[in-house]
Amino acid sequence: QINAQRLWDSIMETAKIGGTAKGGICRLTLTDLDRQVRDWFVAACEEAGCTVTVDEMGNIFARRPGKDNSLPPIAMGSHLDTQPTGGKFDGVLGVLSGLEVLRTLKDTGYETNAPVEVINWTNEEGSRFAPAMLASGVFAGVFTRDYADGRKDREGKTFGEELDRIGYRGTEKCGDRKLGAFFEIHIEQGPILEDEDKVIGVVTGVQGMRWYEVTVTGFESHAGTTPMHLRRDALVGAARMVEAVNKVALAHPPLAVSTVGLMEVRPNSRNILPGEVFFSVDLRHPEDEVVAAMEIEVREAIGRIAAELKLEAAIEQVWDSPAVKFDPACVGAVSTAAKENGYSHREIVSGAGHDAAYMARVAPTAMIFIPCEKGISHNEVESAEFDHVAAGANVLLRAVLEYDNR
Amino acid sequence: QINAQRLWDSIMETAKIGGTAKGGICRLTLTDLDRQVRDWFVAACEEAGCTVTVDEMGNIFARRPGKDNSLPPIAMGSHLDTQPTGGKFDGVLGVLSGLEVLRTLKDTGYETNAPVEVINWTNEEGSRFAPAMLASGVFAGVFTRDYADGRKDREGKTFGEELDRIGYRGTEKCGDRKLGAFFEIHIEQGPILEDEDKVIGVVTGVQGMRWYEVTVTGFESHAGTTPMHLRRDALVGAARMVEAVNKVALAHPPLAVSTVGLMEVRPNSRNILPGEVFFSVDLRHPEDEVVAAMEIEVREAIGRIAAELKLEAAIEQVWDSPAVKFDPACVGAVSTAAKENGYSHREIVSGAGHDAAYMARVAPTAMIFIPCEKGISHNEVESAEFDHVAAGANVLLRAVLEYDNR
Ligand SMILES: NC(=O)NCCC(=O)O
Ligand SMILES: NC(=O)NCCC(=O)O
Repeated sequence: QINAQRLWDSIMETAKIGGTAKGGICRLTLTDLDRQVRDWFVAACEEAGCTVTVDEMGNIFARRPGKDNSLPPIAMGSHLDTQPTGGKFDGVLGVLSGLEVLRTLKDTGYETNAPVEVINWTNEEGSRFAPAMLASGVFAGVFTRDYADGRKDREGKTFGEELDRIGYRGTEKCGDRKLGAFFEIHIEQGPILEDEDKVIGVVTGVQGMRWYEVTVTGFESHAGTTPMHLRRDALVGAARMVEAVNKVALAHPPLAVSTVGLMEVRPNSRNILPGEVFFSVDLRHPEDEVVAAMEIEVREAIGRIAAELKLEAAIEQVWDSPAVKFDPACVGAVSTAAKENGYSHREIVSGAGHDAAYMARVAPTAMIFIPCEKGISHNEVESAEFDHVAAGANVLLRAVLEYDNR
Repeated sequence: QINAQRLWDSIMETAKIGGTAKGGICRLTLTDLDRQVRDWFVAACEEAGCTVTVDEMGNIFARRPGKDNSLPPIAMGSHLDTQPTGGKFDGVLGVLSGLEVLRTLKDTGYETNAPVEVINWTNEEGSRFAPAMLASGVFAGVFTRDYADGRKDREGKTFGEELDRIGYRGTEKCGDRKLGAFFEIHIEQGPILEDEDKVIGVVTGVQGMRWYEVTVTGFESHAGTTPMHLRRDALVGAARMVEAVNKVALAHPPLAVSTVGLMEVRPNSRNILPGEVFFSVDLRHPEDEVVAAMEIEVREAIGRIAAELKLEAAIEQVWDSPAVKFDPACVGAVSTAAKENGYSHREIVSGAGHDAAYMARVAPTAMIFIPCEKGISHNEVESAEFDHVAAGANVLLRAVLEYDNR
């Protein structure tokens, strides 16, 4: 059994780094606050007797040796970066539960067969630098290091220069490290477990998701003197496109979701017809074919609206993360661990992307979900119960040992 | 006759202060660039033998004495601030044509009866600090000094602290100065004069305009895990409201215009449903009753859309500038001046707001328009012809003398 109070205290302690007035965290990846929480994490891992390695993408690996160190490590982890208006649990729970497992092994002197590692992945959220799960993606060979280094935030700063700036560019080549398995615990970020009063979600996979960037170009002109019929207003076009993107998910009920989360208007002046609007599109469904169909519908709608309003619209796909099925043996280890601990549980598919989705490409992988209040996440009020956090970390501990004992 | 080349050269010289790669100007009010162009203007006025006074709103008055200095001055002017993507003529033409008239009077040793002044009004554009025509509004008693000082830009800086910062807070109480008349020359900013091949627009008035700020509040949540039917997406709501605002003008053809020029999305992250959207609304029509009807329709639509989507929407009116009719004697002086110079001309109502609209409340006022290319304004490609600029300034000179000789 893990030390639930110690885990909770660690979550609350790190929550102060970037903590917001509304009780959330704003700790965007590769900012000074990200450096601070990384420093905290490295110190805590070293104190727990681990050896810390940082790879060239800033991913942090803390290893506790096993009896046979020629075996690839069983890894746990998630991310310490947050959304601009993030909560205290998203990502943090997975990293600190992994740390708590290592602390518990140390306290009890338990010797695993394989080494055990806890990992903090860089830029999981994808909020500052799109796409999400960028550094676990490089680890899994989905993206190149150069591609990742060149990703820009909305101010034009690159991932690479910001990683160098905070001093977390390691030397180990990203992806060189072989993992024996990967377990990630996370809040569900949706309402299902709470609705059904289940403590543990045995995650069988992750739905498919694609991201796009759309730039709509019209013609800037004076709001008071440009007659309606002569306007080429990029925001009127973008508004219709937002409505169309929303409709595309409604046409594939009940599981499809579609979102425009980011929009920038230029020049953004009250008495100028917007000349350019930039916005993001996020499409998701558990089946890749449905995501593909949604993409076609979105492209068609955007093209049609642009033509109707004499606007130009450029659509760029910036992410395609196909649906993932996790490893049956790892999923089985989670399920057994939940059962043996006596926690109510059910199988579940993740609606959110996770580093585990990319890890599944290079190592046997599974995830553990715990409920979060009203399913709310990516919101400063995000909340999880002490007992659920404890239960999740205990399932993580037991799943790792289960897998280690096979 | 004014010196057309000297006027053109002055326009091109000041256009370098904040000049953009696309040939426009970005010289937002009360920035360092605004200070630079003010310094240039003050020096040029002093060189032309004028006495310069700055009032407490940063309005700059340069006076050339007349034969009878107990008479209130005949004033000319406009503004040197620009939109973020403004052109070289909007506002600048009016100030520098006034300066050119004073230079011409000096060159020829012409003595007017009344003193003649050229004025640079602070924050005409309303882009950085809403509403537009703020400091001429204080001069005319429409706004108080405290109200103006407290206006905030989108970063939260106030008009008052920025005016102090650039060192253009004068001591004269704003509005204390009595004006005998006010003449403003401006580019039309619309297509009518060019379409009809007229050189001079004799402006008889300004249409009514109102500005609003709308804040739509929904609930931030995860783009991947929040089912469509549980969403309270503020951007989906705002998108429908943009469409509704656009339709309101279309319902009052052909003269009504309505625009959403500024929009900010929060937290503006690709995988978060927007929790809050802030946007501006600009409604205009030559008849105040139609503007009032449009306001009712916009409020109704925003309320209905918010209710449909379980969002909250707060609407605040931030500006109401009723339709203006200019002084018949001043309009007559412009018309006579156009005729005597042999320029083709027509009467016209301004679609844009101008400092003259507020001056009309405290002094006999009129305006002179010249064509601009394709009617384009509030755009870096804004352009006017040398001959039209010369014609406009000659009409200004003659209208002032005409009025002075009554
Ligand atoms: N877990 C999580 O919120 N990840 C961010 C990537 C996504 O948008 O799903
Ligand atoms: N002339 C001009 O563009 N003034 C700005 C105020 C307005 O929006 O009409």
